[in-house]
Amino acid sequence: MPPINPTRLMAELHHLRTFGTVGTGVVRPSLSPVDMASRGWLRERMSAAGLDARIDGVGNVIGRSRHRGKALLVGSHSDTQPRGGWLDGALGVIYGLEIVRALADDPATRDLAVDAVAWIDEEATYLGCLGSRSFCGVLTQEAFEAATNAEGYRLTEAMTAAALDGVAPAPLEPERYRGYLEAHIEQGPYLEAADNKIGVVTSIVGIRGCKIHFRGQQNHAGTTPMPNRKDAGVALIDFAYTLRQAFQAIAGPQTVWTIGRVSFSPGTPSIIPGEAEMILQYRDPHAALLDRLDEAVNALAATVNGEGVVEVTATPNRIPIQPTIMDAGLQQHVAAAAERHAPGAWVHMPSAAGHDPMVLSAHLPCAMLFVPSIGGISHDFAEDTDEADIILGCQVLADAAASILGRS
Amino acid sequence: MPPINPTRLMAELHHLRTFGTVGTGVVRPSLSPVDMASRGWLRERMSAAGLDARIDGVGNVIGRSRHRGKALLVGSHSDTQPRGGWLDGALGVIYGLEIVRALADDPATRDLAVDAVAWIDEEATYLGCLGSRSFCGVLTQEAFEAATNAEGYRLTEAMTAAALDGVAPAPLEPERYRGYLEAHIEQGPYLEAADNKIGVVTSIVGIRGCKIHFRGQQNHAGTTPMPNRKDAGVALIDFAYTLRQAFQAIAGPQTVWTIGRVSFSPGTPSIIPGEAEMILQYRDPHAALLDRLDEAVNALAATVNGEGVVEVTATPNRIPIQPTIMDAGLQQHVAAAAERHAPGAWVHMPSAAGHDPMVLSAHLPCAMLFVPSIGGISHDFAEDTDEADIILGCQVLADAAASILGRS
Repeated sequence: MPPINPTRLMAELHHLRTFGTVGTGVVRPSLSPVDMASRGWLRERMSAAGLDARIDGVGNVIGRSRHRGKALLVGSHSDTQPRGGWLDGALGVIYGLEIVRALADDPATRDLAVDAVAWIDEEATYLGCLGSRSFCGVLTQEAFEAATNAEGYRLTEAMTAAALDGVAPAPLEPERYRGYLEAHIEQGPYLEAADNKIGVVTSIVGIRGCKIHFRGQQNHAGTTPMPNRKDAGVALIDFAYTLRQAFQAIAGPQTVWTIGRVSFSPGTPSIIPGEAEMILQYRDPHAALLDRLDEAVNALAATVNGEGVVEVTATPNRIPIQPTIMDAGLQQHVAAAAERHAPGAWVHMPSAAGHDPMVLSAHLPCAMLFVPSIGGISHDFAEDTDEADIILGCQVLADAAASILGRS
Repeated sequence: MPPINPTRLMAELHHLRTFGTVGTGVVRPSLSPVDMASRGWLRERMSAAGLDARIDGVGNVIGRSRHRGKALLVGSHSDTQPRGGWLDGALGVIYGLEIVRALADDPATRDLAVDAVAWIDEEATYLGCLGSRSFCGVLTQEAFEAATNAEGYRLTEAMTAAALDGVAPAPLEPERYRGYLEAHIEQGPYLEAADNKIGVVTSIVGIRGCKIHFRGQQNHAGTTPMPNRKDAGVALIDFAYTLRQAFQAIAGPQTVWTIGRVSFSPGTPSIIPGEAEMILQYRDPHAALLDRLDEAVNALAATVNGEGVVEVTATPNRIPIQPTIMDAGLQQHVAAAAERHAPGAWVHMPSAAGHDPMVLSAHLPCAMLFVPSIGGISHDFAEDTDEADIILGCQVLADAAASILGRS
């Protein structure tokens, strides 16, 4: 049970916050000058903690332990959303740094090997989970060269501007690691609502999405009587309304679904829409439940097509993200540490947001720990977590790390 | 009962069609070179028919009778939609020309005064009903100078290009006229469906429209549980679905309503829409019924606002067009002529589309006659009407014209 240093933990977190601070939030998109400055500082802090630290060829900051034996990799990403909160990513990065130090400070654990990491571009400024993809060797040259930010600035140009040309990317050495631990703010309301302090993540939800297109008959909005219409917009409204009821009947407690975009064509007040389209996304921790949602979409489309008025086609609009199961063994260590420090105030839960372990878990065992988000708010300047919860979460993760590496 | 000349009628209609013909359709937007060429030809045909014809300062072609006594103005517009049919507007213009000739050919009617007119820009390439507005003196200089086409080309530039600079607009002399008659294709399916040959227009529908805006709470589409959401898009879907039922309960046989445009903001797959908006338009011949539709919108908005989840505001997005009642006396003449030539195969009906009499009827008595549209199709290259129906309609209108001017 290596004791963490709460003062040091909070000081480092607040220092990282100064890179890109805007009001109560942080604007530190990956590869920006302020992001690279923060990475330089993180490398220096990791070195000062005794790690062999460097910034690799895509911008990951990786600090390797000089100790022998199987290592544990601990960290998160340090880039932010365009208007991000101060803890998203940053929390887990500074936990990694503190755990390295806490273990080094405790004679009982000072020989344990913990590597710290700050991944780059989890937030997809250029290419989501860029850092962990590169680390795992699953980043294709084609995707790398095609990536741009929202303004069309190329990832390759950003890399040159960040002076990363010619720097080698750090590769995963799977035999080095016992596994990967990442702490993160929950970004949702469940922990706070139940007065829980720790979430032990069971899985990261799967995400599927489809584009649903409606083809009717464009016509004059004045002279076409209601019974004669083949209004693609009305068909979309009905479809969305009816699908909600079908989804509600299937949904589990963690299921969410969203219609994020809708358009009618030609989109003018005096013309009956001849075509309409919506983007639907749904998430759940269970692939079988996602299958049932797929089936509900297809069944409703078949019903509408059977009516012969408006033609509906539903096609996937993204590569499905399969639910990612966290390693059961690592979860047990985290859960045991949570019960020691927050008895009865922790819970197993899925993650409804995506994280680097979606990439990493195919290559090494992963576990995640959540701390509460005040008001469930994230991806917003208002994002925050009680300091007591931040400190508790780090202590739990430090205990779990020692336990995973054989000390308890 | 002056007999029209069907061969001459059809020949002139087909000649007008050659100006801007594209496949089976016509592309003759107002003030385009081909439109101005057709107007030169129309002026020549009106002059040849004995009228004192000119192109006025906005492009109207007006042929004044040289006969004494109260005159009847007969015509329509000769400009087309961007991809228009061959009869929309053109039919009524050539009817006017043929009626002048038919009355002149018949000793019983040759002294009657009929003026022919081809209005400009009824189709709103620059400014809807430009020609009749100018004629009635209700076109403001401000609106004239602000008007552009969809490509941003200014009406004033188009006027210069059409060599209309310095040409005086023709003003309405109200004491000159007994009234205005306009024939038009129905542009809807009612006449054909009931095997009627003539529609005697009772009124032109009123049009109202509103923008309905929904303000919820933008949030993460993964981490925000369904019960916690304030999804503006879901609110819009529910509103549209529920409003349809309310409208169906209120609607009369001629009521139509259309949601022509919908947008969700920010409009990305992974974000719960914080705002959403739709454009709703509704039409009916009766102002009182339109009032009830207004009330249904406001009542539903109040209900949703009362629930306190998403905030709804409905605001008019256009200047309401009041229903325009056709002159009862003129209608009787048209109806009597219809019964003579198509006994039992004509009907009183409202117009669901807008026409120049919306402007003119505030200044002189107006009546309209409809002939069937094959398949109810208009504003499309496929627009057409049986030749027999075209000929019958012209004969009915010629009879009505003579009758209105005191010969029967």
